[in-house]
Amino acid sequence: MGYSEQKLQEEKVFKDPVHRYVHVRDQVIWDLIGTKEFQRLRRIKQLGTTFLTFHGAEHSRFNHSLGVYEIIRRIVDDVFDDRPKWSEEDRLLALCAGLLHDLGHGPFSHSFEKVFDLDHEHYTQATILGETEVNAVLRRVEQDFPKKVAEVIAKTSDKKIVISLISSQIDADRMDYLQRDAYFTGVSYGHFDMERILRVMRPHEEQVVIKQTGMHAVEDYIMSRYQMYWQVYFHPVTRSAEVILTKILHRAKELYENGYSFRQEPTHFISLFENTLTLEDYLKLDEAVILYYFQMWEAEEDEILRDLCRRFVNRNLFKYVEFDPAKEYKKLAELSVLFEKAGLAPDYYLVVDSSSDLPYDFYRPGEEEERLPIHLLMKNGEIRELSRESEIVDAISGKRRTDHKLYYPEDFLMDDSTMKTIKKQIRTLLDI
Amino acid sequence: MGYSEQKLQEEKVFKDPVHRYVHVRDQVIWDLIGTKEFQRLRRIKQLGTTFLTFHGAEHSRFNHSLGVYEIIRRIVDDVFDDRPKWSEEDRLLALCAGLLHDLGHGPFSHSFEKVFDLDHEHYTQATILGETEVNAVLRRVEQDFPKKVAEVIAKTSDKKIVISLISSQIDADRMDYLQRDAYFTGVSYGHFDMERILRVMRPHEEQVVIKQTGMHAVEDYIMSRYQMYWQVYFHPVTRSAEVILTKILHRAKELYENGYSFRQEPTHFISLFENTLTLEDYLKLDEAVILYYFQMWEAEEDEILRDLCRRFVNRNLFKYVEFDPAKEYKKLAELSVLFEKAGLAPDYYLVVDSSSDLPYDFYRPGEEEERLPIHLLMKNGEIRELSRESEIVDAISGKRRTDHKLYYPEDFLMDDSTMKTIKKQIRTLLDI
Amino acid sequence: MGYSEQKLQEEKVFKDPVHRYVHVRDQVIWDLIGTKEFQRLRRIKQLGTTFLTFHGAEHSRFNHSLGVYEIIRRIVDDVFDDRPKWSEEDRLLALCAGLLHDLGHGPFSHSFEKVFDLDHEHYTQATILGETEVNAVLRRVEQDFPKKVAEVIAKTSDKKIVISLISSQIDADRMDYLQRDAYFTGVSYGHFDMERILRVMRPHEEQVVIKQTGMHAVEDYIMSRYQMYWQVYFHPVTRSAEVILTKILHRAKELYENGYSFRQEPTHFISLFENTLTLEDYLKLDEAVILYYFQMWEAEEDEILRDLCRRFVNRNLFKYVEFDPAKEYKKLAELSVLFEKAGLAPDYYLVVDSSSDLPYDFYRPGEEEERLPIHLLMKNGEIRELSRESEIVDAISGKRRTDHKLYYPEDFLMDDSTMKTIKKQIRTLLDI
Amino acid sequence: MGYSEQKLQEEKVFKDPVHRYVHVRDQVIWDLIGTKEFQRLRRIKQLGTTFLTFHGAEHSRFNHSLGVYEIIRRIVDDVFDDRPKWSEEDRLLALCAGLLHDLGHGPFSHSFEKVFDLDHEHYTQATILGETEVNAVLRRVEQDFPKKVAEVIAKTSDKKIVISLISSQIDADRMDYLQRDAYFTGVSYGHFDMERILRVMRPHEEQVVIKQTGMHAVEDYIMSRYQMYWQVYFHPVTRSAEVILTKILHRAKELYENGYSFRQEPTHFISLFENTLTLEDYLKLDEAVILYYFQMWEAEEDEILRDLCRRFVNRNLFKYVEFDPAKEYKKLAELSVLFEKAGLAPDYYLVVDSSSDLPYDFYRPGEEEERLPIHLLMKNGEIRELSRESEIVDAISGKRRTDHKLYYPEDFLMDDSTMKTIKKQIRTLLDI
Repeated sequence: MGYSEQKLQEEKVFKDPVHRYVHVRDQVIWDLIGTKEFQRLRRIKQLGTTFLTFHGAEHSRFNHSLGVYEIIRRIVDDVFDDRPKWSEEDRLLALCAGLLHDLGHGPFSHSFEKVFDLDHEHYTQATILGETEVNAVLRRVEQDFPKKVAEVIAKTSDKKIVISLISSQIDADRMDYLQRDAYFTGVSYGHFDMERILRVMRPHEEQVVIKQTGMHAVEDYIMSRYQMYWQVYFHPVTRSAEVILTKILHRAKELYENGYSFRQEPTHFISLFENTLTLEDYLKLDEAVILYYFQMWEAEEDEILRDLCRRFVNRNLFKYVEFDPAKEYKKLAELSVLFEKAGLAPDYYLVVDSSSDLPYDFYRPGEEEERLPIHLLMKNGEIRELSRESEIVDAISGKRRTDHKLYYPEDFLMDDSTMKTIKKQIRTLLDI
Repeated sequence: MGYSEQKLQEEKVFKDPVHRYVHVRDQVIWDLIGTKEFQRLRRIKQLGTTFLTFHGAEHSRFNHSLGVYEIIRRIVDDVFDDRPKWSEEDRLLALCAGLLHDLGHGPFSHSFEKVFDLDHEHYTQATILGETEVNAVLRRVEQDFPKKVAEVIAKTSDKKIVISLISSQIDADRMDYLQRDAYFTGVSYGHFDMERILRVMRPHEEQVVIKQTGMHAVEDYIMSRYQMYWQVYFHPVTRSAEVILTKILHRAKELYENGYSFRQEPTHFISLFENTLTLEDYLKLDEAVILYYFQMWEAEEDEILRDLCRRFVNRNLFKYVEFDPAKEYKKLAELSVLFEKAGLAPDYYLVVDSSSDLPYDFYRPGEEEERLPIHLLMKNGEIRELSRESEIVDAISGKRRTDHKLYYPEDFLMDDSTMKTIKKQIRTLLDI
Repeated sequence: MGYSEQKLQEEKVFKDPVHRYVHVRDQVIWDLIGTKEFQRLRRIKQLGTTFLTFHGAEHSRFNHSLGVYEIIRRIVDDVFDDRPKWSEEDRLLALCAGLLHDLGHGPFSHSFEKVFDLDHEHYTQATILGETEVNAVLRRVEQDFPKKVAEVIAKTSDKKIVISLISSQIDADRMDYLQRDAYFTGVSYGHFDMERILRVMRPHEEQVVIKQTGMHAVEDYIMSRYQMYWQVYFHPVTRSAEVILTKILHRAKELYENGYSFRQEPTHFISLFENTLTLEDYLKLDEAVILYYFQMWEAEEDEILRDLCRRFVNRNLFKYVEFDPAKEYKKLAELSVLFEKAGLAPDYYLVVDSSSDLPYDFYRPGEEEERLPIHLLMKNGEIRELSRESEIVDAISGKRRTDHKLYYPEDFLMDDSTMKTIKKQIRTLLDI
Repeated sequence: MGYSEQKLQEEKVFKDPVHRYVHVRDQVIWDLIGTKEFQRLRRIKQLGTTFLTFHGAEHSRFNHSLGVYEIIRRIVDDVFDDRPKWSEEDRLLALCAGLLHDLGHGPFSHSFEKVFDLDHEHYTQATILGETEVNAVLRRVEQDFPKKVAEVIAKTSDKKIVISLISSQIDADRMDYLQRDAYFTGVSYGHFDMERILRVMRPHEEQVVIKQTGMHAVEDYIMSRYQMYWQVYFHPVTRSAEVILTKILHRAKELYENGYSFRQEPTHFISLFENTLTLEDYLKLDEAVILYYFQMWEAEEDEILRDLCRRFVNRNLFKYVEFDPAKEYKKLAELSVLFEKAGLAPDYYLVVDSSSDLPYDFYRPGEEEERLPIHLLMKNGEIRELSRESEIVDAISGKRRTDHKLYYPEDFLMDDSTMKTIKKQIRTLLDI
C-alpha cells in the first residue's frame, strides 16, 4: 500500500472547541501536522492584535488550520462520499491544501506585509515547494504532489472543484474562521448552521453548489460574516494596535537605514530591512520573536521607537476620532503642523487608517481578493447565483463599505504640563 | 470623593467568552488593569504547556484574572449587596485581591518554580508591595492598601471572609479556572451551575457558606474539578512537555555553571542561574522571551540543549509508560545503565513524573496548599461541613490519588540505524 | 405596606432554559402566576401546530409569558434602575402587562381566530377586566389597576414608554419568543445578543431607544427574526397542519348547522358555532379539550370530519406545491372540478394558503399589526430611525414577502385503486 | 430488494435540539414513525407531572424515542460500522427496538401504573405484537420480526448485544433521556461527553464494553444520572403533583365502585376500573384525554374529586415536610385523627411519598429493574467491571438512597376561618 493510502492504526483525535473533535486517519496528514513548519503556526495568532481588544482572541493559526482541515474532511468523507468522479487523489489533495493553506503566514501578517511588502501566499507556496519538512512529507506521496497542493492553494490548479472547497465565498476557510473567531472572542455573531450547509453542498461540474433548500442557512452565514467584519475584524481598537505596530516597524527600519546603533541589534529584521529575506529567515519569524524585540526596544535610546514599543507591549494605545478624508484633509494638514510644533512626529503619531469590506459579491473580475460567487442548485436542476434568489444578499451585494479613523496619542495631548496652548488647539481641532 | 469611590463615567465592559461580559465601574480597577505588570499576564499562558495537548488552551492568565475579578464582583455587588457588615472597603479589597491574585506568575510557572526554587506567591506579594505601577495605583487608595491587598492574597489578613472568596475550596479562583479551562480546551467537563452557587452563598461569621439547598450544585462543582484534574491538568502529554521544559532549564543552568560558551547568551537567565533574581528581572520574564531563547538554542553546539529545545519548540515530545516506583526501581536502574550505553544521558532522557491530587478535603492542617473546607448552612441554621452531608463528596474526600509515568524519547529508541541491540533491550524492558 | 410593594419573604426562582432563571420577588406577580387563568396557558402551545414539523416545539405559552416578564424585569430593575421618572407604579404596570400580555390566547389561536372570527387580544382584555382570579389579584393593587394593565396591553394607555417595552419592533415579547422558539425547535437561527441590547436600551421621552453603539446587535436581532419567520413560523408543513385544523373546524360547524347528529356532541363548540361565546366558555377551551374532541371525532360517521381528524391526530398531513394565484387561477379551477369528480370535496381537500411577512418597517400607519419603529440614540444626542443608519435594515425594510402554496392529500391521489384516470390527470396538473 | 433494505430516496432529517439532527434513511423506520401508535407518543409527556416544577419539561415521549433511535443509529452506523459479526438484521433490529422501546407508555405512566396495576412494558409488547399499524410495518420485514423486536425490548432475546444497546446501565435510552431532560428543564446537570462515550464503545462477545480510556467520560455520565435523579426526577414538587394525580384516580375509582353518578361519565376509565382493559382501550388513553376529564370533573358534586382535580389542573399542589416513617409513625396516626376531625379525609389529604434510587450497581440479581453493569475493556484486553476501576463509582455503587416526605394541603390548614383549634394542633405537629 502506498504512503498516500496509509492509515493510522488507530484514528487520532484532537479535542477542538469549535468542531468538538478533529479526526485524523491518514498518515500523510498526521505527518504534516508534526512538521516544524506546521507547528510554527502555534506561535502566530489567528487574529493578530485583536487579543488587545477581545482578550479571548489568543488562539493561533494552528488552531484554525486544523479546523479548516476538519471541515474539508467532513465534506469529502461524509458529504461527497458516494458522489461520482471524486477520486482518492482529489480527496488527499483537498485535505492537504486545507491543512496547509495558511502555512506561509508570518507574525502579525497584516502589518508586516504592509510595511515590508511581503505576501503570505508567496511564502505558503515557498514553504510547500522549498526544502522543508512539509515538502518532504508531500513528496513521499508523489514527486509532483507538493506542486499540486501548491497549485490548489494558489488557485491555478485545474481542479476547480478542489479549489472551490478552499477558496470561494463559502469555503472551509471562512466557515472555520467565522465560527472560531466568534468562539474565542465570545461575541454572539459568527454562528450559522454549518452542519446544514455541509448537508446541502453538492459537487456540480467544476464547483461546489448549494441546494436551494439551504439558501436560508447561507444567508445566515453571509450575515454572520458581515457582522464579524464590523464587530470584530475592523474593530477600531484593534486597528489602533495595528497602527502602532506598523509604526514600530517603520521606525526600526528608518533607524537602521540611518545607521542608528541599536542596544538590541535587530538581527531577525535585517534581511527584512535590506529586502534579502530568504525562506529560512522568514520561517524564523514568529510572534514570540517579535515580542522579544519589542520588549528589548523599550529600553532603546530612540524616543519614538521606545515609546511605540512600550505602547504596544503594555497596551497603551492611540485613541481615535471619525475622519472623512474627502472633506477633512485641510484639518489633517493643520493638525500635522501642530503636532510637529508639539514635538510629536506626525508621521508616527497622527495616523489615518481605513477599513473596507465587500460583504458578498457575485462578480469581481480582476480584483486581488476575487473569490468565486455562491451558486444555488434549484429544484429544477438549474444553477442560479445566490443574489438573484436572496433579497437580503442582493441588498448588500457588491456594496463596499469603508470606515476611516484618525489615530493619535490622547494621553500626551491631555497632559497639560507642557505645550499647554498647542495641545489645547489640537484638542479643539480633534473635538476632544 | 476619594479615589477609592471614584466611578468611571460610563461602565466599561470586556467581552468574555466565559462570563459573557466583565464589568468595570471602579476607577481603581480600571487603572490596575492598565498597569504594565497586569498587562504582562497576557504573555503568560494560563495552562502552561497544555496547549501542546489541547490546542485550544492558548488563553492567558490575563483572561483568568479578569474572570476571577468578575465572579467576585458579582458576589459582592449582587449577592452580598444588602447583607450587613459588608463595607465599601471590604468590597474594594476583595475586587483588587481577586484581580491581582496571580500577578506574580512567571512563564511556565510550574517548571520554573521547580527548577529555580521560585514561588509565584512570593512575586505576587513583591509586585504589589514593590516599586511598580500596580503599587502606585493601590497606594492612591490609601498608603496601607497595597499591604492589605497583599495580606488577603497571602491569607494572613484578619479579613477571613474576604480571604475565603479568593482561597477556599470553592472560591472565585477555582470557579473561574474550571470553567475557563474547560471552555478553551473544549472538554465537556468543567461545567457546573455557578449562577446557582452564587445565589446560595452567604457570608456567615468569618467565612462564606453555602445554603443547604445548593448542595447538589456544589457536588457537581467538585466532580467537575476532579474530572478536570485527571482529564486536563494532569494529562500525560502535557506532563511530557513539562518534563522537556524542566530538562532544558536544567541543562542550560548546568552548561552555564560549567562555563559553556553560548551562541545566544542566556542574558535573561543569568540572575536565575546565579540566584540573584530581582523583582525587575523577574517581571521581564514572559513566555515570548523564553520561547525566543529556546528557538535560538536550537542552534547551540551542545547536543542535549539543542535537541531538547527542538523537541519543545516543534512539539516532538517524549512518550511514556506507566511506572510504579515502589516496584520498578530496579528496572529503572537497568534502563538507566542501558540509556547511558546508548549515548542518551539518563538524567535528561529517562524521567519519572508523578501527579497527585486531593479532590476535596475537610481538614488538612499544615499542608502547603491547605484551603478552607466547604460549609453548608442548614435549614435550621446549623453549619455542617460538606462531606458530612454529601455521600459522594464523603466518598472521595481526603483520598489522594497519584499517577506515575516514565518518559523517554521513543523516536530515538525506534531508530535502529545505530545501537540496534541496546535499543532492543531497552524496548523490551519498556515493553514497547 | 400596600399590597403593590409587598415582597416575597424569599425570592422565588423558576429554572428557565432560555433565561436560566426567572426571578420573582413581588407578591403581586407571584399571585398572578398562581391564578387559574394564567395556569391555563400551560395547556396552550406557544407555536400551535409547529410541533408537527419541529418535534421539540411542544412548549406552552406559560413558558413564554414567564420569559417576557423576566426580560421586562431585567430592563426595569437593572437597566432603568436609576433612570429618572421611572416610578414604582410604572414598574409594576410593566411587569404585569408583560406577564399577562398573552392571557387571552386560545387553543391553536391562529386557526380558531380565523374560522370563528375571534381575537385573542379581545379575550386578554376581557380576562383582565372580567370576573376572574387575575382581575381579583390586580384589583388588590388598586381598583383601577386592571384597567391600567389592560390599556398598556391594548396600546391605548398614555404610558407610551411602558407600551413600548411590550409592543414595539424590539420589545420583550419578540425578544423572548425568538430565542425561546429557537431553543425548543433546535434551529440555529434566533440567536442574538439580548444582553447587549438590554445594556444599550435607554428610556427617551415617550419611547425606549437604543444607543448607537448597539446598532449591530439590533441588526442581528432583525435578521434572526427574518430567518425565524421563514424557517420556522411559516414552514409549509406547519401550514399544512393549520390547513387541516381549519378545515376540521369548518366541517364541524357546517355539520352542526346542518343538524348532523354527532356521536360525540360538540358541547364546548356550540357557543362558538352559534356565536354566543362567553368569557367563561372561552376560558374552558384549551388544547387538551380540542384534542379530546378530535380524537372522538375520528369515529364520526361523516367521512370528511373523520378523515380530517385522523389526519390531524396521526399527523397524516397534506402535501403541497408552489402556487401562484395571479397566474394559476385557471389551473385551480380545473383541479377543483377534477377533485369533485374524484369524490374529494375541493373545499376541504384543495387549499391555497398564503404567508406574508414584513421583516421591519419604519412607518406603517393604520395597519392592524402596527408596531413602533426602532430608534437609535446617536452619540450627539440625536434620534434616528434605524433604517436610516443601517444599510442592511434599509435593504429589507418595508419589503413584504409572500409565499403561496397549494395543499392536497397526496396519499389519496397516489392510490390508484380507484379513479385511476382522474387521479392521473390531477397529478399531471400538479406536476407530481 | 427486500423491504428491510429499502432506503428513502433522499435521507429525511428531523431537527432535534439535543442531537441537532435525527437522520432517517431506512424505509422501515420512516414507516414506523408514521404509524398512529408512534404518533400517539406526542400526546404523552416524557416527564409526566415534572412540567409543574420545571416549566420547560413539556417534551413528549415522541421526542425521546426519536433520540434513542438516533443514538443507536450512530452506534451501529458509525461506531460498529466495520466491526465483525454485526449483521444487517441486527442493525435493523437495534434501530426498531430503540425507536419503539417506550411505545406502551400511557399518560402519566407512573401514577396510572401504580393505581391500576398496569405495566407499560406489557403494553409495549402488546402494541408490537397485536393488530396495530406498527405490527403491520414490522411484519413487512419478516413474519417473525415483530416478535424479534419485542424480545429485544423484553430482554428475552438471545441477541444479548442488541439488548445491551437498549437496556444496560449505559444504554441509548438513558443517554438520551439524561441529556434531553436536562435540555428541556434547563438544569445544568445532565451533561456528559456522549460523543466520547460512543467513540470508545466496543462490541465484545455478548455485550457492549467501554475502552478503558473512556472511563472518565463514563464516571461523568454516572454523576449526571445521580444529579438528575435527585434534582429533577424526584423533585418533591413533582411528587406532590403525582400524589394528587394518584388520589384523583383512586377517588374516581372509588366513586365508580360506589355507584356515584358522574356528571361527566368516566367512559375512558371504565375498563380500567373494571379491570377489563383491552389494547384498543389502552391506546385511546393519552394526556389530552385525561386532562379533559380532570377539567370536566372540576364541576363534579363530589367534593374530594372536585377539589383534587382543581388542584391538579390549576397547580394548587400539596406542601410537604420531611418525614421519617421509622420514627414518626405515631405522629402520622395522630395527624390522621386530627385530619379526620377537621373534615379532611386523610386517605386523600395526608400522604407519605417515598423516592429511592440506586445510582449504579454492578450486580443486582432478581431485581425488577435489573440492568447490566458497565464493563471496561482494559489496555491488556481484560474486561473489568467499572466500580473496580473507578473510585468514585465504587463509592456510590450499590448505595440505595431513599427520601420520604409527608404531603398535605397547606392552604386549607392555614385558613383559620374554620376549625381554628384543630388546624393549629395540626400545624404544631407538622411544625409549620
